[in-house]
Amino acid sequence: MKKGRTITIPGFQFAGLHCGIKDDPKKYDLSLIYSEEPNTLCDGVYTTNKVFAAPVKVCRAVSKRGRARLIVVNSGIANACTGKQGLNHARQTQRVAAGLFSLKTTEVLVSSTGKIGVPLPMPKLLRGLSKAQRGLSPENFLLATKGIMTTDQYPKYGWVRGNLNGEKYTIAVLAKGAGMLCPNMATMLAYVLTDLHFNHSVMKKIFREAVDQTLNRVTVDGDTSTNDTVLMLANGRAGNKPFSLNSREGRCIAEQLRALLEEMARKIALDGEGATKCCDVFVEGARDERDARKIAYAIGNSPLVKTALFGCDPNWGRIMAAVGYSGARIQQEEISIRLGSTWLAKKGRGVPFSAASVIRYMKKNRHIEMQVQCGKGRGCFHVYMSDLTYDYIHLNAEYHT
Amino acid sequence: MKKGRTITIPGFQFAGLHCGIKDDPKKYDLSLIYSEEPNTLCDGVYTTNKVFAAPVKVCRAVSKRGRARLIVVNSGIANACTGKQGLNHARQTQRVAAGLFSLKTTEVLVSSTGKIGVPLPMPKLLRGLSKAQRGLSPENFLLATKGIMTTDQYPKYGWVRGNLNGEKYTIAVLAKGAGMLCPNMATMLAYVLTDLHFNHSVMKKIFREAVDQTLNRVTVDGDTSTNDTVLMLANGRAGNKPFSLNSREGRCIAEQLRALLEEMARKIALDGEGATKCCDVFVEGARDERDARKIAYAIGNSPLVKTALFGCDPNWGRIMAAVGYSGARIQQEEISIRLGSTWLAKKGRGVPFSAASVIRYMKKNRHIEMQVQCGKGRGCFHVYMSDLTYDYIHLNAEYHT
Repeated sequence: MKKGRTITIPGFQFAGLHCGIKDDPKKYDLSLIYSEEPNTLCDGVYTTNKVFAAPVKVCRAVSKRGRARLIVVNSGIANACTGKQGLNHARQTQRVAAGLFSLKTTEVLVSSTGKIGVPLPMPKLLRGLSKAQRGLSPENFLLATKGIMTTDQYPKYGWVRGNLNGEKYTIAVLAKGAGMLCPNMATMLAYVLTDLHFNHSVMKKIFREAVDQTLNRVTVDGDTSTNDTVLMLANGRAGNKPFSLNSREGRCIAEQLRALLEEMARKIALDGEGATKCCDVFVEGARDERDARKIAYAIGNSPLVKTALFGCDPNWGRIMAAVGYSGARIQQEEISIRLGSTWLAKKGRGVPFSAASVIRYMKKNRHIEMQVQCGKGRGCFHVYMSDLTYDYIHLNAEYHT
Repeated sequence: MKKGRTITIPGFQFAGLHCGIKDDPKKYDLSLIYSEEPNTLCDGVYTTNKVFAAPVKVCRAVSKRGRARLIVVNSGIANACTGKQGLNHARQTQRVAAGLFSLKTTEVLVSSTGKIGVPLPMPKLLRGLSKAQRGLSPENFLLATKGIMTTDQYPKYGWVRGNLNGEKYTIAVLAKGAGMLCPNMATMLAYVLTDLHFNHSVMKKIFREAVDQTLNRVTVDGDTSTNDTVLMLANGRAGNKPFSLNSREGRCIAEQLRALLEEMARKIALDGEGATKCCDVFVEGARDERDARKIAYAIGNSPLVKTALFGCDPNWGRIMAAVGYSGARIQQEEISIRLGSTWLAKKGRGVPFSAASVIRYMKKNRHIEMQVQCGKGRGCFHVYMSDLTYDYIHLNAEYHT
């Protein structure tokens, strides 16, 4: 499946190029993902923001039907807050692409990421579409990973291969993370592609649960984008027998997908705007999962915890305070906090520890691990947070609309 | 009431000095506020953080009884997350101060602000207490404003004088805002002092409503401190007749107090850590006040809106997105956004405007006004937000615990 640095997924073709939405001709701004199989299953998970972009509306309608064969992604302009004109542009893209590939309009998914409130340059985009179609190849996966980037510092992708009852299969994912060059939302886009043969309802459950446990738990700045979209296509080319959710195969595939998306979540947090570190925040012992979730996000979104992380400062007081204002039901006397292998606070107050060794741990590692023990409850939750740095301010204050 | 720069409030005496909690001998770290009147009324509003400091616990018990004559404030150490030892320290401070002033323990309020998880240096603090008592004077108001500061760039205070049915009165307030040198919470402390003669229930209503509408709506970084405390003392020295809530006098005093605390709220936002701007966010037309509040805080806490404010960038897309993820019930097509006198977006999409003139407005003013119109509902809410700057990162990442 992998020749040199090329990743292929049987039955999928890709393109990525510069069509002129971004000014810099070296920067790609259009990607295509095409499935050769007529009966390719699809599902989608979208932003919860009530202000959502036109392409999100279009994708929701497609993925509700459960079948799709083409994904068109442009970067540079988000097509958000663009009113009826924006919706027309998204639908025109969908129609023209369907025409080029002899597909039904309802088989085409469209995503956009970039500036808000700006109309798409349709002539450039449509010319780019034709050109991309001509450039389509099973070996262009990496080009496609580049066409979806905004301020990402590097393309993000991953894959696993396996063998299911004698049939080889591949699951691959390409994603873009939290970044914005022309300053706008830190949009997350991710596309999961596989040649596995799925029962549709099994695929939806496995996909949504994996997204919920990984990509949905990344917090860079707590701002939810208008364009967040995660799509999955499964073309069935591998020829395996479909499996149930609770079979050995089902559990194995679910775990592989979760692990793959976890890797993406970490990459996205680490490539968050200006980020230098990704911290896994594990909350345990809360009254229930809801409370654990509140605590994890309060910590993950706290500018004070984020700056302490950047400064490699084992400032457990800030973490403790975030637990306190999270809205979860907690007892101050039951909170314990660990960074790396060192407990900084136990039962609500500080314990003696070697600050030098914790600082060394924080300085040496880009992946930091934090555990917050809240009591004896069964609620646990996990988020991936990035730190808050000078470069975040630079990226978001210095570039102008 | 005011001689040169000295503010006096009949029946109140003040002290402020360096007792050794902070390292720098030029920095004050202890303040006293003393009321000469035996029957001084008191009330308090405290942090909603479930992790709260020992002095907050002590104050809650005092203000529940409704009478107090002395406030002891130290800065430099917050006495938070210090367990039983911390509570003993707060109570010892209360007891020793009561002894020095021949008061009941239950008439003494204590506040702390500064580092979390560090024990108070009690010998220094208690020596400082005696010294402060000897230095007490009606003219030392300004010294007291200095002893409560942490990373505040300047002391914050204000006052009004009035005449109630022939009796002169004064309402004064001293406050500290969002800052931390030795990095910890951005604690807000404020003390309202007046010689007005109040009916206690009228005072509590007026006080709590004024705090709720002003100081409770400042958001610097969305982190709620473990130590936030706002206290009010009224000693009755003015000799006016008590008034009811809905009398002309009641409404007038309520408005004066609200305006005074509003001034403090603006000063605190503008002196937020590293802040260069204070923005008044007015949300109108939401379904109800709860929704308006959610929207206002989503905007006020958004790192993306805050950095745009710092960069003087009229980036309405970020504001629109914050409205969308606020959790309020909104229709994208009904949202309009104004900065200064310019509408940037109407009914969910951008409108043509002179970016140059909006940027000029943002660059020229330290007080920015933002209006977000959400529809035809009756819900409105108002918060004071600061911007997010390089200096915020510097203050919070570079100083270590």
